[in-house]
Amino acid sequence: MDNERFERGMEMLREVDGQLGDRVVESLSDVAPDLARLMVEFAFGDVYVRPALNLRDRELVTIAALAAKGGCEPQLKVHVNGALNVGLTRDEIVETFLQIAVYAGFPAALNAVFAAKAVFAERDG
Amino acid sequence: MDNERFERGMEMLREVDGQLGDRVVESLSDVAPDLARLMVEFAFGDVYVRPALNLRDRELVTIAALAAKGGCEPQLKVHVNGALNVGLTRDEIVETFLQIAVYAGFPAALNAVFAAKAVFAERDG
Amino acid sequence: MDNERFERGMEMLREVDGQLGDRVVESLSDVAPDLARLMVEFAFGDVYVRPALNLRDRELVTIAALAAKGGCEPQLKVHVNGALNVGLTRDEIVETFLQIAVYAGFPAALNAVFAAKAVFAERDG
Amino acid sequence: MDNERFERGMEMLREVDGQLGDRVVESLSDVAPDLARLMVEFAFGDVYVRPALNLRDRELVTIAALAAKGGCEPQLKVHVNGALNVGLTRDEIVETFLQIAVYAGFPAALNAVFAAKAVFAERDG
Amino acid sequence: MDNERFERGMEMLREVDGQLGDRVVESLSDVAPDLARLMVEFAFGDVYVRPALNLRDRELVTIAALAAKGGCEPQLKVHVNGALNVGLTRDEIVETFLQIAVYAGFPAALNAVFAAKAVFAERDG
Amino acid sequence: MDNERFERGMEMLREVDGQLGDRVVESLSDVAPDLARLMVEFAFGDVYVRPALNLRDRELVTIAALAAKGGCEPQLKVHVNGALNVGLTRDEIVETFLQIAVYAGFPAALNAVFAAKAVFAERDG
Repeated sequence: MDNERFERGMEMLREVDGQLGDRVVESLSDVAPDLARLMVEFAFGDVYVRPALNLRDRELVTIAALAAKGGCEPQLKVHVNGALNVGLTRDEIVETFLQIAVYAGFPAALNAVFAAKAVFAERDG
Repeated sequence: MDNERFERGMEMLREVDGQLGDRVVESLSDVAPDLARLMVEFAFGDVYVRPALNLRDRELVTIAALAAKGGCEPQLKVHVNGALNVGLTRDEIVETFLQIAVYAGFPAALNAVFAAKAVFAERDG
Repeated sequence: MDNERFERGMEMLREVDGQLGDRVVESLSDVAPDLARLMVEFAFGDVYVRPALNLRDRELVTIAALAAKGGCEPQLKVHVNGALNVGLTRDEIVETFLQIAVYAGFPAALNAVFAAKAVFAERDG
Repeated sequence: MDNERFERGMEMLREVDGQLGDRVVESLSDVAPDLARLMVEFAFGDVYVRPALNLRDRELVTIAALAAKGGCEPQLKVHVNGALNVGLTRDEIVETFLQIAVYAGFPAALNAVFAAKAVFAERDG
Repeated sequence: MDNERFERGMEMLREVDGQLGDRVVESLSDVAPDLARLMVEFAFGDVYVRPALNLRDRELVTIAALAAKGGCEPQLKVHVNGALNVGLTRDEIVETFLQIAVYAGFPAALNAVFAAKAVFAERDG
Repeated sequence: MDNERFERGMEMLREVDGQLGDRVVESLSDVAPDLARLMVEFAFGDVYVRPALNLRDRELVTIAALAAKGGCEPQLKVHVNGALNVGLTRDEIVETFLQIAVYAGFPAALNAVFAAKAVFAERDG
């Protein structure tokens, strides 16, 4: 029965994060498999699937939150990828971090932009 | 010349925050008038006016950032109002804070929802 | 089926937080009932029930986390109550915040101690 | 022997914070007297007395740190008072928070300025 | 006389952190030897020695605080080691970070689990 | 006309940060040139030039804020350099981070001291 939530979550995780999502789950499989499972079930199986915000808006919210919090560069990279996967443009992502400068300061904005720059470069391969 | 940026900023501030924007500026007029002026010029005159994100998306980013950072309840109330003014629905605002629970924890989500609840109640008179 | 998780979560929530838990759920019932439900299901129905840490240790972890993060005084009060409910002593709670002074600074410790002081006073009637 | 550190700390605490310092110590005397003692001994008896920074610079550092961290409004008020006591001007304090807007965002600056405004008003009686 | 606090602190530091504690102290010896001394005296000589919480509980509090704060990965690694040294199991440490997901979000939990994973791998040689 | 603010800002940026300032601007030139421009215009062209605090005090405030916030090590390195450029001594910088230990905890102080240590080593070349 939780299998249903897990499967629904993995499907959503893959739609948003592509193979990076699988990689996060795998990297937890030896030390904290239950953290991976709960994250997939709750975050992706329960929350992301809700229709009240579309995926593009969820990723906009997520990259704004991670940039404002700070210290979440690995997760920010996963979600800059996710944001691009669900339809945000590079310009919108960079502009989001410019908006963050107003509310969390320039260091938060710079750290986020450099994370985005690394993701863009990787995707340009 | 900075007058132009200030005027443009005040116009934008009023479009987003309505009379609450004026109130913040006024509340700074005795102790820190230059902070008010720089905030209007930079945040609203330079950043909000940029076309790369529309106002609805900017407010979505802003309430996500303030909720994730925490400790910004007064600003969160101003921007929940702003979010409603520029077209976000109450459901979208609450759903944004539900998404925040995943990335910044339930206390951050609860504090933000209670700020929104206070704003909704005030608007309902 | 999620009813089972919800019921299990409400039972756990009541064991930890007593009637304060119900009050948080009720206070969300008009604006964000789904946030309440997801919190009960995930936090209390999925996480708190796990045997890998007992409730006393979970509350120790929770008050340490809330004190270190800062800006979570309402939640800290709920969980200082919870900590007392599941067997931590007042001395252990205060000592936890003294330990927090080392890792998050004296302001974080002071804010947490004043939250605890308010809870102790309320319980003393 | 720690009495010496405590006495030296209380003297320094009073030089910086005036009677507000005593009030913080007293407010801890029932629930967490050891936190008060360790704070006086370590923060004021060990750190503030060091000649490598003068008191004016220490308070400049302290109000900048508290404003940037956020969620420390009670401590910020004590130290805006302290800053004034050891020679910083109101203009320098407000300008410090303007500088904070660049590095921690406008909400952090606004919260700090409103704390300062309250302190200034109280001192003007 | 402070020698006594320092010696007591170094003994405690070694009991908790093993040779990693000495390494932190040594790494500060050229630029900030007084920070090392004050940390040993205050954190380990004054606080850790107090009987109100045992070492196992202090390390539980410490890893919870560091994980919730974020941006403290080097210190988190030292204290995951410390936690293991004073009797916490790997399962309890990982479960602590799962509990952190509820209160500080999944990114904080993930960063902490990956720090723990690195420590476990190093100890397994 | 904004050219004037930009030129004034670049001059100030170079006075404070030397060639590191140019390097930050250049590193943004491909992905986020407008973030660089707005940072130069606002932070350095509008704020740093204000006479209410001298450059030495501004850098003291800045390194205190960055250390207290945490997760800003790249910016902290730039501004430890800046602090040295505008007249703060190595001892004053290290002492600032010792003061930070009181208000934001030892991990924040340690991370900042290690950033300073790296900058000192690089300058000693």
